[in-house]
Parts: sequence; C-alpha cells; structure tokens
Amino acid sequence: MSTRISDVGESWLIKFILSRISKIDGSKLGPGDDAFDFTSPRRVVCSGDTLVEHTDVPPEMTLRQVGRKAVVAVISDLAAKGAEPRYIVTQLGLRRDLRVEEFEELWAGLEDACKEYNVKIVGGDTNEADEIILSVFGIGFSDNPIPRTGARPGERVAVTGLFGATYTGLHALFNSITDKKWEKLRESVLNPKARLYEGILMAKSGLVTSSIDSSDGLAASLQQLSQASGVGIIIEDLPIDPLAAEYAKQFGLDLFDAVMFGGEEYELVVTLPDSAIDELNQKLSSFQGRLIPIGRVSEKKEVEVLWQGSVRRVVAGGWEHFVSKG
Amino acid sequence: MSTRISDVGESWLIKFILSRISKIDGSKLGPGDDAFDFTSPRRVVCSGDTLVEHTDVPPEMTLRQVGRKAVVAVISDLAAKGAEPRYIVTQLGLRRDLRVEEFEELWAGLEDACKEYNVKIVGGDTNEADEIILSVFGIGFSDNPIPRTGARPGERVAVTGLFGATYTGLHALFNSITDKKWEKLRESVLNPKARLYEGILMAKSGLVTSSIDSSDGLAASLQQLSQASGVGIIIEDLPIDPLAAEYAKQFGLDLFDAVMFGGEEYELVVTLPDSAIDELNQKLSSFQGRLIPIGRVSEKKEVEVLWQGSVRRVVAGGWEHFVSKG
Repeated sequence: MSTRISDVGESWLIKFILSRISKIDGSKLGPGDDAFDFTSPRRVVCSGDTLVEHTDVPPEMTLRQVGRKAVVAVISDLAAKGAEPRYIVTQLGLRRDLRVEEFEELWAGLEDACKEYNVKIVGGDTNEADEIILSVFGIGFSDNPIPRTGARPGERVAVTGLFGATYTGLHALFNSITDKKWEKLRESVLNPKARLYEGILMAKSGLVTSSIDSSDGLAASLQQLSQASGVGIIIEDLPIDPLAAEYAKQFGLDLFDAVMFGGEEYELVVTLPDSAIDELNQKLSSFQGRLIPIGRVSEKKEVEVLWQGSVRRVVAGGWEHFVSKG
Repeated sequence: MSTRISDVGESWLIKFILSRISKIDGSKLGPGDDAFDFTSPRRVVCSGDTLVEHTDVPPEMTLRQVGRKAVVAVISDLAAKGAEPRYIVTQLGLRRDLRVEEFEELWAGLEDACKEYNVKIVGGDTNEADEIILSVFGIGFSDNPIPRTGARPGERVAVTGLFGATYTGLHALFNSITDKKWEKLRESVLNPKARLYEGILMAKSGLVTSSIDSSDGLAASLQQLSQASGVGIIIEDLPIDPLAAEYAKQFGLDLFDAVMFGGEEYELVVTLPDSAIDELNQKLSSFQGRLIPIGRVSEKKEVEVLWQGSVRRVVAGGWEHFVSKG
C-alpha cells in the first residue's frame, strides 16, 4: 500500500510546503507567517484562477501537468495585462486518498511553471476536499497594465498565435488518438504556454490599446473585448492553425468551431493602431514572438467573422449567419 | 422546482458577480478585466484561506454565515499582522445542484463581512465543484506588519479575549443543544469576529513584538509563536471563558482541552514588554478591546501551562505532564 495524504496528515503537508515556499526580498513576514508582505513602487496587478479536477483535467494529463497548467492560467492573465508576475499563492484542495507521490508530482508541476516564468511561490495552504482543486493567485507589477476597454474603431485586431490546436487536441485526448502526427495538438492542451514576454513587451511599448487572453476561446475573447470597449470587431482572416485544420478535416470536425470555440489557448488578443503592427513585430521577433493581424475594430457593436465568403455574427455560445439591417 | 446554479449557467454567475464587485479607486483595470490593479505607498500584506463545505461547516450554520466566515478568517490573518484590509478576491467552487437563492445567500454572507470590516470585493470567479469551496484572498496595507518571529524571553504573552467558546459551541451544535443559555457559545462558531481594530492599533503602537491569530486553537498558536521566534512560553493564567467552563462542567467536557484545542476563535495571541500592557489597554478600551496577560516568554523552547497546580507541556496535538530535566 502506498502512503496517502490522509496518512501523513496536515503537519507533514505544512512542513512540505514551508520548505518549498520562498521568502520575499525585503519582507517583514517570513514564509509560514499568517500573511506575506511586499512593497512595490509600481502598480500591483493580481489575478486568480481555479482548476477543478473533474471539469478541467482531460484524459492523459499527468498531475505534474495539472499543477503546471494551474499556474500558467494565472500567468496568462497577467501576461494579457502586460504585468511582470512575481508571486504565486496556492490554495490546494486535496483528496484524502491522494498518494503522497501524487501530491509531490502536483507540486512539482506548480514549480515547473514558476521556473519557466521566473516567479516564486510565497504562500500556500492545503485543505481536504472531495476532488483536487487548485486555486492559484498571482501577483505581478506593471507601470501601465493594458485594460480590455481601450479598443477604438479603425484599429487593428491582432493575436499572438494561431488557433484550433486545443480544440482538436482535446478531441484527440478524449478519443485516444495517439498518432505522433497530432502530438503538437495534444501538447497544446497538456503543456500550454503563456504569452508572457509578448504581453510585457506590448505593455511597455504603450502601443496596444486593449488586451485579453483567449483562455475562454477566441470567440469569447472577441466578445468580451468588444463589450468592454463598447465597439464592434470584424475578423477578416481567422488565425487557423494548419495542423488543426488538417485534423479537423480528417476527423470531420467543424473548423470554424475549432478555431473560435476552443479554449485555454492562452494566446493574447489585442487591438492597436495600424502603424504599430510592424514596430511591435520587429521587437517581438527577437524571441520568436509575433503579432498576426486578423481584423478590425468597428463602430457597430457586434463581432462578425468573414468565413468562406459569408459573414457570421458571433453570439453567446455560437454564431449565426449575418443578416444585414441596412 | 427551484432554479439551480446549473440551470442559470456561467454567464448568469458572471453577470451576478460583475454587478457586485467594486472598482478600485485609481485603478487602470476595471471590474471584470483579466486582473485588477492598485498602487500602495505602504507595504502590501496578503493572506488567503479556504473554507470547505464537508469539513468546515457545522450543523445549523446558514450559507450566509458560511460566506461571512470565509471572509472573517482572512480578515483575522491580516488583523494578526496589524494590516488594514482593503480588497477581497473570492474563488468559489459551487455544486451544480446549489439553488440560486442559496448562492445569493452565500454571496450575501461574503458582503456582510466586507461591510463589517470595510473591505471591497474586487474580483471573483466561480467553478463547478463537488461541494462548496470558498477560497478567499485578502489584500491589506500596513507600514509595519507584526511578524510571528519577534518574541523575546522575559516578555509577556497576552490575548485579546477568552477561550473555550468555540469548542463548547461546536459541541452544542453537533449535539443539538439549543438551550438559550448557551447561545453565546453557539454564536461564537456561527458568527465569529476578527480582532481587526485591536490588531491595527497594536501594529501602529510599535509595542507588540510578535502576533498570530488563534484560528488553529490556542495551543497551536502558542506552539507556532514559540517555534517561529525560537523561544519558549509559560502560561500562568489560562484565559477561560466562564460560560464555556460552565458548559464543560455540565456536559462533562475537559475544560483544558476546550480552552487549548478549540479553533477558529480568531483571538490574537501576542507578545510584548510588561510596560506596554497598560498603555495598550488604555488605547484598546476606547472600543471595548482589551489585552489579557496570560503568561511569559521563556528561554526554554517549550510551551508549558500551569493547570490545577501542575505543569502541562503542550506537544503536537495534545499535552503531557511536565517532567523536569533539571
């Protein structure tokens, strides 16, 4: 019998976590205190995200990947605002029957992401729960975080990458399609990347007027950006991942849905003046980043997509063929 | 049939929460953005706490009280550090079968605590979960947060109130003892108070050398303070709630256990020089607060309690009669 979390108990968990959390430079309260503290001459930018085992963990995802993804989701929120993430706090709900090695794997995943994005875990607690629940809270700094509200008619809409990989990757995972050919799609679900350097660079440039990450899918991101800014969006060139398109064709999936209604792709969706695209792409190219123009901000408060010769209006949870009112 | 959370869906929840969270003065990111932002000329002090339905909710506790308590627990952490709480973030795990009115009750409880302690809910999300899980994160400001580490031999140990009410109150709730006489004990569990004004005043005074809240019970708080400061503690006068003592006697409970191994009493346990006690008590009396001396900081790194003529040494999860090594 392997050792369970319920066997080692809370004091073991506290010791484990205490030995792995970092003291913040210059803080008055050390690790393990009731709270942690820091100073910041810059704006403090915070975001939290929760990952729940039975809804957010697809087949084949290891616990290490689960832990990593919980942190990546929060890094992506901060990335969308162009904030530099610094501190991570984890509130973990753990099943009593979780094995100690499984817990350590989960924690190793949290640390994987923290190393990748150069952040520290500065606090954390655990609770007994009926399933694994990871609430991660991230704190970053920024002089000038990019809101969702700044999009203005005439500006370009651009994204940091192609879409469709997670939708098709999830399909592959749920249908046990293990062909090496589609590995990149599966990987996009299991080991997502946050566009942190892109976000920070864009915020520093001061050229981007609004920004959101695409964790809820491209369609939802466009709708939220449109609503928050009080503008419309017309997408002329959907940013289609070619491998996802090939997969969709082979397995009979709707490519429009795959591109628009995936999720957790963690690309950034931004608006900016035409003139800024080239300037930003030059800067982004230094670390293989890029900004792909996909459409325009419009006056009409709707999200429309040019698709195979007709216009689709994106509505809550789907789309409809556009009917002109004019 | 009443409406369930699963019927109204995520978009309803998002709208509900968005209409109830506050914009932070001077922030660049409004409510509903991927993150929130603020500036602080003072130290930022943060703490999180999670309340889980099946382990943390006793019989008779309403959902409104559950919501309130989840926030009070975090306010108490900040109070122990003497930080002024400002912002609350809630990450809620909700059962699919939760009724909409139940969710609204839960939320009303979060707001009750926020009003009491003058803090704002500035962000929040919901997830589907197998049970109700409230992860609350609190952000406060302080020039000089009080750590757990500053206790020095010779100083006094003091507390902000009496102990034993939650232990006996829980017993009453679990055993359906509804006699009006014990209402104060039951109330201590159902509607706990955080010692916020005491904590802030003590931090401002600069007179307190270490502080912790007693959410894990008095014994655990003393042990943690002792370990963090690398000192010992001798308790000479246990701060016994007289009503709890009466209850313990009537129902055959061990009073020492009731006082030492309760929990979620949210009193503060602090250390300070002798000379500071009167000065602080004068200041605290303006809002009916008080500091009750209960013992001393010692050199020997153990927690000992004088009890009924003998000395008990507090050890992990319990106590043993003290055997002198001298």
